[in-house]
Parts: sequence; C-alpha cells; structure tokens
Amino acid sequence: MKINPDRFLKDLHTLRSFGASGVGKGVVRPAFSAADIASREWLLAQFEAAGLTPHVDPVGSVWGLAEAPSLLLGSHSDSQPEGGWLDGALGVIAGLEVARAAKEAGGPSVSVVSFQDEEGRFGGTTASSIWAGGVSLEEADKFADFEGVTFAEARKSMAHLAGDFVDHSQFTGFIEMHIEQGPWLDQAREAIGVVTDIVGIRDLNVTFDGDQNHAGTTPMHFRRDAVQGMVAAISQINTAFAPVVSESTVWTNGHITPHPNASSIVPGQVRFSMQWRDRDTVRLDQMERIIRDTVEAVANARGLGFKISDYWALEPVSMDERLRRALADSAEITAPGKWRAMPSGALHDATCVSALMPVAMLFVPSINGISHAFSEDTKENDLVTGLTVLSRAVERLTN
Amino acid sequence: MKINPDRFLKDLHTLRSFGASGVGKGVVRPAFSAADIASREWLLAQFEAAGLTPHVDPVGSVWGLAEAPSLLLGSHSDSQPEGGWLDGALGVIAGLEVARAAKEAGGPSVSVVSFQDEEGRFGGTTASSIWAGGVSLEEADKFADFEGVTFAEARKSMAHLAGDFVDHSQFTGFIEMHIEQGPWLDQAREAIGVVTDIVGIRDLNVTFDGDQNHAGTTPMHFRRDAVQGMVAAISQINTAFAPVVSESTVWTNGHITPHPNASSIVPGQVRFSMQWRDRDTVRLDQMERIIRDTVEAVANARGLGFKISDYWALEPVSMDERLRRALADSAEITAPGKWRAMPSGALHDATCVSALMPVAMLFVPSINGISHAFSEDTKENDLVTGLTVLSRAVERLTN
Repeated sequence: MKINPDRFLKDLHTLRSFGASGVGKGVVRPAFSAADIASREWLLAQFEAAGLTPHVDPVGSVWGLAEAPSLLLGSHSDSQPEGGWLDGALGVIAGLEVARAAKEAGGPSVSVVSFQDEEGRFGGTTASSIWAGGVSLEEADKFADFEGVTFAEARKSMAHLAGDFVDHSQFTGFIEMHIEQGPWLDQAREAIGVVTDIVGIRDLNVTFDGDQNHAGTTPMHFRRDAVQGMVAAISQINTAFAPVVSESTVWTNGHITPHPNASSIVPGQVRFSMQWRDRDTVRLDQMERIIRDTVEAVANARGLGFKISDYWALEPVSMDERLRRALADSAEITAPGKWRAMPSGALHDATCVSALMPVAMLFVPSINGISHAFSEDTKENDLVTGLTVLSRAVERLTN
Repeated sequence: MKINPDRFLKDLHTLRSFGASGVGKGVVRPAFSAADIASREWLLAQFEAAGLTPHVDPVGSVWGLAEAPSLLLGSHSDSQPEGGWLDGALGVIAGLEVARAAKEAGGPSVSVVSFQDEEGRFGGTTASSIWAGGVSLEEADKFADFEGVTFAEARKSMAHLAGDFVDHSQFTGFIEMHIEQGPWLDQAREAIGVVTDIVGIRDLNVTFDGDQNHAGTTPMHFRRDAVQGMVAAISQINTAFAPVVSESTVWTNGHITPHPNASSIVPGQVRFSMQWRDRDTVRLDQMERIIRDTVEAVANARGLGFKISDYWALEPVSMDERLRRALADSAEITAPGKWRAMPSGALHDATCVSALMPVAMLFVPSINGISHAFSEDTKENDLVTGLTVLSRAVERLTN
C-alpha cells in the first residue's frame, strides 16, 4: 500500500478546525461538545469515503469497519478542556490514512476507531473501558462531569447516530499511535518511541490528624502539627524511594488540603495525594510498602493520627510481543538509530483494549515534552515518520 | 480595698449568659452581634452601679470611668465565633470588681474598659488599634467581615449609645488580665503568669513557580515541581532554625495553596504561609534571614521561580517595668513559688495600648492549653488568685 502524507496532514488540520482554540494550534473539543460531535460526524464521512463501514456505538465511539478479520488502528479525537491538536487525534487520522491506503491497495483489512472521552470528562478512557468490560454501562451512566451532567445525559446527544457495540472478535489486534507527552524523544532528537509497557498507577490519599491550635501560644514541643507531619513524611518517602526506583519511575504529591488553612492556626489536619507509576508491579509494591511504613512511623513519632485511603490502581500492561516487534522492525528501517523502546507513563485507550486483544503503541516526539496545553506540537516530518512506521508495521503483520 | 470573689464569679457567669453556646461553658459573642451589644449594655449598667461613669466610644468599646487620673484595667468581651467564656471577658470582669472594690474603699481611682472586636471580625484588636492611632477610623471603616459587612455599618448598631473617644491622658497605665491560651502554667501547676513581653510576629507568603505537567509522562529529573520545592524549603528551614530559636519561639506553616491541586498533575505553583513569633527582634531578624536564604537556595537548586510577599509584622512589646514588678511582687505574696514570668505568644489589646501609656499583663492557666474553643476553661480558684494578684498590684501602684 502507498500512504499519502499530504492527505494525512490535510486531514489532521481539518480535524483541528473542529474546536480550534485560536491560541496556537490548540483545540477545545471535550467529549460530546458540539465541536466533538461535529468532528465525529466528519470522521464517519471520511471512513465512508475510504470504503469503510461507518458505525457509532452506544457510547459515542466512531468506527470505520473493514471486512473481518481486520487489524484495528486508532485512538481518540476528544480533547482536554484546553487541549493539543495532536494528542489522540493523531492516532485516529494516521489510522484513517493507513486504512484508506490499504483499501486503495486492495488489502490488508484495516479498521479504524476514535474512542469517546479518553480525556475524562466522565472519568477517563470512558468509552474504551465500557467496551472492554472494565466498567458497566449502567455504572458509567451515573458518572457526572464538573457541571453535574451525567454520562447518560451526554451520550443522548449522539443517540440518533448510534447502533450497537462493535463485536471485538473481528479484530486481530489494536495499534495506537500517540504523541509521547514527555520529553525523552525530543531531548534525544529521536523520531519514534516503540512502547514496551503502559505503566501501572497507584493513587491514594494520606490524612494526618493533629491538634488545631493557636499559632502564637502553643509551644513547638506541645504541637501536633499535621502539616509538619506531611512535610516529614514526603521528605522521608523521597529518601527511601531513592534505592528502589528506576529512571522512569515517577511519583507526585499533586493535591494538598490543610485544615483550617489559616496562617495563624496550627493546622490540625492535612490530606495529601500520593501517586506513583512504574512498569513493574514488584516495584509498585515496594514503593507502597515504603509509603505505608513511613506514614505510620511519622505519625507515631509525632503523636499524629493517620488514615491511608483505599487506592485507585491500574496494573501495568505489557505490549503484545508480535505487534511490538513489527513496530520496532519498521522503526529501525524508517528511522535507523533514531528510535527507542520505552514505557508509556500515561494511560491510553490501549490499556483498556488490552483486555480484549493484543495491543501495541508507538509514540512521536512532543516538542519540549508539552501536552494537554494549546502549545502542544510535533514536527511535521516526525508526524510523517510515525505514519510511515505504522503503515510498515501493518504490512509486516498482514503479509 | 476588699475584693468580693463571689460577686466577681457571679458577674463572670452573668456575662457568659450573653451568647451562651449551650456547649460546655462556651459563648458565641462576636463583635456587634446582638449578644455582644446586649452584654455591653449590661456592662455599662454594672459600671454605673459601681459608681463609675459609663461611656461608649464611637467604635463600640465600653468604659467605666473613675476620677482622673486613674489606672485603667480591662480587656475585651467580644468572642471568637466559637469562643471560650473567659478569654478577654475575665479581664473585663476582674477590672470591674477591682474598680468597684476601690470605689467602696474610697480609692484608689480605677477605670475599666471592654475594647471592641479584639477577636477580629474586622481585623483584630480593632477598637484598641483605632484608639491608639495604629489605624485611622476612616481606614478601619472599610474593613469587612466574611459576609461583606463593613466596620462602618456594624458600628452603627451602637451609634445611639456612643459619645466621643476617651482622652487617654487621664490614665496612668493599663493592666490587662487574660487567660494564658497556652499550656505552660497548666502543665507546671502554676497559678499566675506575669507577662514580660508580648512577642513580635512576622507573617509572609512564599510562592514557588515551577512547570505544571503530566504526572505520568514527566520524568523526575525533568520536573520543576513547586510542592517538592516547598517540602524541601520547610524541612531545611526547620533544620536551620534549630540553633537560633529559644524554647518559646514558634513558627507555623498554616496555609498552603497548591496549583492546580490535582493528584495527576505535577504542581506548577504553590503558595504557603510562614509565620514566626519571638520576643526578641534580633532573633526575628535571624529567622527572617534563614527563611529568605533557604527559599532562594531551594529555588536555585531546583530551577524554580520564587516570590516572597511583603510581610505583616508587629514588633515585640515589653511590659512596663514598674507595672510588671507590682504584678510580680503581688504574685509572689499571693501564690508563692506558683507563678512565673513569661512572654505572651498571642496578641492582646495591651499591644495597641502600649503606644499610649505603660502597660502590663497577667495570665491565669488555661486547662490543657485550650482557647478559642467552647471547651476553654480555668479552675475557679485560679480565677480568684488572678483577681487577688490584680487587686494587690493596683494597691501597690497607688499607695
């Protein structure tokens, strides 16, 4: 098959026009917004024009279906409230171009999908989770956005287009192309990342309970200061992590709520988030042990009460070996010495789809590592290199 | 003169009935609330019955004036939104009892005051600040409470009672009796604290600016995480303070605002409060130097931007030597070996009044160091011991 880079870039820019922010190349296209629905109708027309069977499922994912069995390509075309123009849109349009070129060449059989609400207006990877059985439709229908609109209400806006869920047994595998969203490729001046694993995530909240007291009259030795407990715990956790973590392990204390949060009152309580990600379940366990032990030790040393919430977790997902090797071999031919194998630190629809079929992912560089911002971008030749690697991998897998 | 402890305790309990919370002995009597105004009208009647000239000034402070020149006793009878029954009310009723006993004995000349809004519905030590010239009435009139009511509007509710400001030149000094609000006396089973100084306060905000980024795809070495900068700065400041501080020095990080405050986003900014108190200006300066140097060093080491706000400050106030010695001598006679000289870690009306005349303070114990809470309390015999020390000091100063 013969891909057409100009057609691919033109379609990418057309998709960008739906919800274009007017700030840089950014887009405002959250799931089920008017711009999102219009863009999905446009996608369905492109699928049909490419000779694929257009289809909308009950949760707003749009499909271009080829003859079964087929390989599935795609990602998501909804954006963050202030999103980049590529993000998941890149994987959808790359999938469209490869499926179209394959149709023109009389094969192989390639289908395309744009999953709905990967960006989490209603939670995150919402449509692919439902499709893969990670969450029931009944449960998901109760999810609400920040304005109280439920998923059930939102998906009514596409109900007039919707058919049934797609039978996953028609697909032999799923390949998702995406921007890296991190700095590794850009810093190394490489063109392609072939994903080895999507990292696992654990996310919990720690609460320290002390005594709320007068910040003038309460001597230091008499205090049970929750914020000082938090500072000690985070410091000690950082130190204890050092011998355990790898170069790609990350951890974040992104959320802090002190109480009563006043400069003249010794804080009686603080709740803070602890999130950590790694590709290795054993390491995730080791880090969790350190967190639990440190929090307890700090609380005991300072006479504080503590609570550790239930955690929200996603296990690491390894990419399918056959699909991954096809991507790696194609990357080496297309960009010799200019690609790397790497984990994905972000979640993707591929995480959910891995419950149904073999999955793999490839990344193109993010300039300065920026994503989820209007300033997100990737060099045009890197976009085309990514498309080329994807199409060559499809050829390898179907020959 | 002969003080009457029963009459003193009865009046204290009557004052408590204005705004009694129904929870323990607590009161809800913020400045210019209906309960506060009713209690001030009751106080004026007690002043009159004691043979003092009742007077209300334009900012809601109520006065019982004796023949000039006189010694001024008192404190404040407004409370926190959830306040203790003693707090400033103790100093007002103790002043009333001593002035009344002095009248009955034909001298000395003792006046009494209950300042308005010490607890800060409109800022803190509001009426005594205005009286002492720390803030102009015009400026204070613009202060608003959390519901947007201005001081100008609030003080209209007592305007029908109000005369002019009181001429401070008629007073030879001011003695304020108060609960300690800290644990020192209660822990040591002592009855009286004679205040040496009211500590100075400095209060500023530190802001660290980093890069807001994806908590999955941004490697640790690439991050400029504002919250991690804060944790490092607070830890290092604690360590650097150790050789500089005294037993009574206190410092507090009571307020923290991270941005965007989400568990999956590397925090791009955090603002946190740093407040420190000590009786010694040199030490306050040393601590400030440590804070500024540490914040700058942490910012430089981590590639963060930083801002240090202007600070809000009150200089330490030394108690007048003659008044303080009268209190100390009376304490030693009344409770030999059961009193101590100590700084006040909290602000009081005496801080403001010190701009006008010699001031001194004495403390009675706070059970478990609790104040600004319904559970605030002091043993009855400690209350009477405090009253006795106050009356004896007045006799010493006027004989």
